[in-house]
Amino acid sequence: MDQQEWVSKKMGKFTLRFKPYTLTLRHVFTVASFSRSTTPVVLTELEYEGVVGYGEASMPPYLGESQESVMAFLNKIDLSSFDSPFQTEEILHAVDALDAKNTAAKAALDIALHDLLGKLMNQPFYKIWGLNQELIPATSYTIGIDTEDMIRKKVQEAEQFKILKVKLGLDTDKMIIETIRSVTDVPLCADVNQGWKNKEEALEMAHWLKERNVVFLEQPMPKEMIDENAWLTEHSPIPTIADEGCQRLVDVPGLQGVYTGINIKLMKCTGMREAKQMAELARALNLKVMLGCMTETSCAISAAAQLAPLVDWADLDGALLIDNDLYDGMRVENGKCILPDRPGIGINLK
Amino acid sequence: MDQQEWVSKKMGKFTLRFKPYTLTLRHVFTVASFSRSTTPVVLTELEYEGVVGYGEASMPPYLGESQESVMAFLNKIDLSSFDSPFQTEEILHAVDALDAKNTAAKAALDIALHDLLGKLMNQPFYKIWGLNQELIPATSYTIGIDTEDMIRKKVQEAEQFKILKVKLGLDTDKMIIETIRSVTDVPLCADVNQGWKNKEEALEMAHWLKERNVVFLEQPMPKEMIDENAWLTEHSPIPTIADEGCQRLVDVPGLQGVYTGINIKLMKCTGMREAKQMAELARALNLKVMLGCMTETSCAISAAAQLAPLVDWADLDGALLIDNDLYDGMRVENGKCILPDRPGIGINLK
Repeated sequence: MDQQEWVSKKMGKFTLRFKPYTLTLRHVFTVASFSRSTTPVVLTELEYEGVVGYGEASMPPYLGESQESVMAFLNKIDLSSFDSPFQTEEILHAVDALDAKNTAAKAALDIALHDLLGKLMNQPFYKIWGLNQELIPATSYTIGIDTEDMIRKKVQEAEQFKILKVKLGLDTDKMIIETIRSVTDVPLCADVNQGWKNKEEALEMAHWLKERNVVFLEQPMPKEMIDENAWLTEHSPIPTIADEGCQRLVDVPGLQGVYTGINIKLMKCTGMREAKQMAELARALNLKVMLGCMTETSCAISAAAQLAPLVDWADLDGALLIDNDLYDGMRVENGKCILPDRPGIGINLK
Repeated sequence: MDQQEWVSKKMGKFTLRFKPYTLTLRHVFTVASFSRSTTPVVLTELEYEGVVGYGEASMPPYLGESQESVMAFLNKIDLSSFDSPFQTEEILHAVDALDAKNTAAKAALDIALHDLLGKLMNQPFYKIWGLNQELIPATSYTIGIDTEDMIRKKVQEAEQFKILKVKLGLDTDKMIIETIRSVTDVPLCADVNQGWKNKEEALEMAHWLKERNVVFLEQPMPKEMIDENAWLTEHSPIPTIADEGCQRLVDVPGLQGVYTGINIKLMKCTGMREAKQMAELARALNLKVMLGCMTETSCAISAAAQLAPLVDWADLDGALLIDNDLYDGMRVENGKCILPDRPGIGINLK
């Protein structure tokens, strides 16, 4: 199961361990800009007084981090000046200040720290945050860009899901939607991954998609096209959601008026603490909130799911897309996310 | 010690108890609009599975709540449909939805619920929030409007404090500042309580005050004078802070550009949960954060102090202004706020 040994790093009262791991995908995954069949991740463990928290960094290659960069970053972390994991704000501030970017590496530490804290408080983190897991929206399940036959097959396999997410942005957009609609009428979310370049055509597609029960448009145009995205948001009959256009907390206020909502992902925003702040900030600014993921194990998925009761749309299928998950954690039953009633992020090694 | 008996209300797994109590002030307290020597409060206890959380509503008369209105509101609360205090978000949402306003009554429930949750997790709430109490700013201590002799006496009594808060807004403003400056050169905060009505005069005073080491201006003009407050903020050499102009989370985004920062008080904003969200929202919007209080016991003060590591200025002298405090909780030593390392809000009955 383990492809590599753990690197172990003692830092005062804390010990940080990490190792690379490669996720293998059930299906080759195609979006507007690339195809792939594996995802590199780094697994982490943070130990304090005999209690161990689990974390993970997932690095789809287009985001600029790699197993090497994550391990190099984790090697730079030194928590020996901290007495207690309860100094969470300062620990995470210090980690964030070590270097720019490296958001997945930072998330790998943040998730392990939250898992550890939850175990020290003996409560699942969603309860520590006062949230009710019954309020988690049904998760969407992603159908990659593919041939008509493969799309039909994938949609049929996904019959438990109450909402599907479709990758658009190539010249096959209408074919994909029509193929899915020949099999199912569940609501769809359309993720364009910046694939459209013309706002009038984007608006035309938005109307066409709304007629086919597509409920929102994720990152319809390149993030740099701020005025065009704002124009589309103003005119679109369905909400627009920033994904590539929204990484961290500091980005959120500037997205008012540009998109209807934001897609929060732990790997973009350094982890659970900032993700929760982003969700609350977005709600306070009347922005809709979607919670997304990368392909990742049930570790990072279960971490994200802790805050899912706060969001409008959940897209937490990352662990369902791989065939070598290492953990039991959040399950999906009839499209519904179910969190285990276990402390921290609630995962066990399989 | 107790002036009245507890009213006790069983609601499924929860029991809520409350009673009125009257705080007696050490000094008659004068601000721009009134004087008084007592403050009415209502004390609460929320019990779940044998664990009791403490709460408090404080009702300075100008805010529109009274012991009668708070007890009437608490009587309307019914938590019998909730299984667990960890359903915090929904419980507080249901309480908030019972009626508009009644923010102190809502805070009395919120504080007791947080104290209970902290006890169930066996951690002080500042630790549950991941905050370090070493980062709490030195608290200011309020000098009310008074005669020159009394001001000198009060300032001398307050020698432990590293920062004083002065109530301005009458025609005695310069006398008060000069009197204080004849005794001490500690930094001052000026709380005008909407007392100034002319923006040019306000700006002139801001310059005069800055020269005398006044570090910010709280609510310089009436909250309705939005354009004038924004103009003053743009031109003022010291920050402006919204107090009457900022009650709840929903108010915060609209204050960008109108003030430099906000004053958060539990009794205005329904309690600890919304107060923390306000602090985080304000920081995300680059607004400064002050944490204030009413005259209240160490119960509500210790509750507010849990989030004080997040703020720029703390004004947590409320329990120091009374002579019949019922609780041991946050202490002030050499102007520094010190939280007990006890679960929840950390208070004990004296």
